[in-house]
Amino acid sequence: MRTLLLWMARNPWLKDRIPRLRFARRAVRRFMPGEDAEAALQAAARFRDEGMGTLFTRLGENLDEIAQAGAVTDHYLWMLDALRDRGIPGEISVKLTQLGFDLDPEQTHRNMERLVARAAQDGGTVWIDMEGSDYTERTVALYERLRVAHPNVGICLQAYLRRTAADVQRLLPLDPAIRLVKGAYDEPAAIAYRARRQVDANYAAVGVAMLEAAAQGRRVRIGFGTHDVALVEQLAGHAAALGLPRTAFEVQMLYGIRMDQQRRLAHEGYTVRDLVAYGTAWYPWYMRRLAERPANVLFALRQIVG
Amino acid sequence: MRTLLLWMARNPWLKDRIPRLRFARRAVRRFMPGEDAEAALQAAARFRDEGMGTLFTRLGENLDEIAQAGAVTDHYLWMLDALRDRGIPGEISVKLTQLGFDLDPEQTHRNMERLVARAAQDGGTVWIDMEGSDYTERTVALYERLRVAHPNVGICLQAYLRRTAADVQRLLPLDPAIRLVKGAYDEPAAIAYRARRQVDANYAAVGVAMLEAAAQGRRVRIGFGTHDVALVEQLAGHAAALGLPRTAFEVQMLYGIRMDQQRRLAHEGYTVRDLVAYGTAWYPWYMRRLAERPANVLFALRQIVG
Repeated sequence: MRTLLLWMARNPWLKDRIPRLRFARRAVRRFMPGEDAEAALQAAARFRDEGMGTLFTRLGENLDEIAQAGAVTDHYLWMLDALRDRGIPGEISVKLTQLGFDLDPEQTHRNMERLVARAAQDGGTVWIDMEGSDYTERTVALYERLRVAHPNVGICLQAYLRRTAADVQRLLPLDPAIRLVKGAYDEPAAIAYRARRQVDANYAAVGVAMLEAAAQGRRVRIGFGTHDVALVEQLAGHAAALGLPRTAFEVQMLYGIRMDQQRRLAHEGYTVRDLVAYGTAWYPWYMRRLAERPANVLFALRQIVG
Repeated sequence: MRTLLLWMARNPWLKDRIPRLRFARRAVRRFMPGEDAEAALQAAARFRDEGMGTLFTRLGENLDEIAQAGAVTDHYLWMLDALRDRGIPGEISVKLTQLGFDLDPEQTHRNMERLVARAAQDGGTVWIDMEGSDYTERTVALYERLRVAHPNVGICLQAYLRRTAADVQRLLPLDPAIRLVKGAYDEPAAIAYRARRQVDANYAAVGVAMLEAAAQGRRVRIGFGTHDVALVEQLAGHAAALGLPRTAFEVQMLYGIRMDQQRRLAHEGYTVRDLVAYGTAWYPWYMRRLAERPANVLFALRQIVG
């Protein structure tokens, strides 16, 4: 099932056709408040009133020409202004390929610097999302270069990759911001753990490595980006054992998934940030979300049938 | 299946009868070289020649009268002498209930002190095994008291217990020796993780917490007591990421299980210690071993049928 959904996510023929189907557009509403930024901002205002932050991402992946990267950057600059104007405790998460990584890495770096500099004015962090393993090393390297110059930049690391334990140790001396996810691409066993229990074990191990660094006084900002509430609670137990407060890490979950748990955790004193996606290019992203959790597929089917 | 086997382990009627059956005696040979100490010592001499250490445990659980505890202690003192005389790199692991813990905790403490003092003459560590959760707190407390007075005493902690993360942090300041196992008793969900992937995740997390302490220069002796080779290799990756040598931890597996992997790990430069059990009271111990791994049940059935 997971392999099929990830194949569908990559298939260009389906990518053209599925998003035009009305039932598909209805099903995707489970994971995003709407295609336009305005719907995302309104959802974020509601989360703010419930004591939760928001992490925004505009969907869209590889570009055809570098000029498009400038437009994406301008859009995110507009978004940062909108967050300030409306007093929304939001941050943005961007994919480097959206900023031109395949076409012009130097231009990508400059685009990131523009975003980071603007976000710094309001004390916000710009998060770099992680894509398929072709990009991992380049993304970590670009992050290092940015982080040396700017305090307010974060990176996403994927627990299913075997290299992630070493990447965390490589980045910790930089006082990084790390958002840890399980990982949603179809990666080979040579570089990635494939069994769920191995991915979970690595998630817990990497999570504890970051918590240990925090307990030793390292200024590391930790985001646990997973819907696996049991795993988050296990890590919360380790944080408590290390004498860390509940605010030592942030829990980051997607809009629409386990909202009851997001609210409960926020209510219990954990820092919760809801990840809100928007934009028209939702098809491959949506298929990866379905691949992540069997429960999501069932939910989508019920929305289509109902 | 696991619940059934653990119920069988506790059932007194079966406990009396099953060990008398010839096929059961044949099947248990998978996990122990023989019932007498001599067979265990001979197996250990072979492991020594293959570059592996041994951890001995004489099977037997709760006692009826405290005098029996003295006999058990005398037996282990004899065993420590035998190890020295034969030049076997062996250590012993004891259950506190065998030393009288239910009947006289102070006498148990004195029995442990006799063993620890004798083992210290040859630089060996005496390991305290962990039993059901009724004993956890008392066992950790007795370990603390012993460890303050003696450097060469170790304890077993169980990754399935929710308290273990905190127990590790509690013991680390003592420069402890900790043997981490998944846990083999039937514990309620209120105090224990029951899903395998949660136990594995906690094992990895607790394992990394100990490795982090070692990387910070803490003198912690780490034993990974599991047959889950994938999990051991995952932790080996974390140890390497922390800059630790392969000898930063010991791999401890049972006699007869995954011997090919034990030899391979030893050959690759890991420290491997084979856990050799002996004694006549093998029934409940053997049933817990079957409950741990479905593969063990299949193997036992094949031995009975073949």
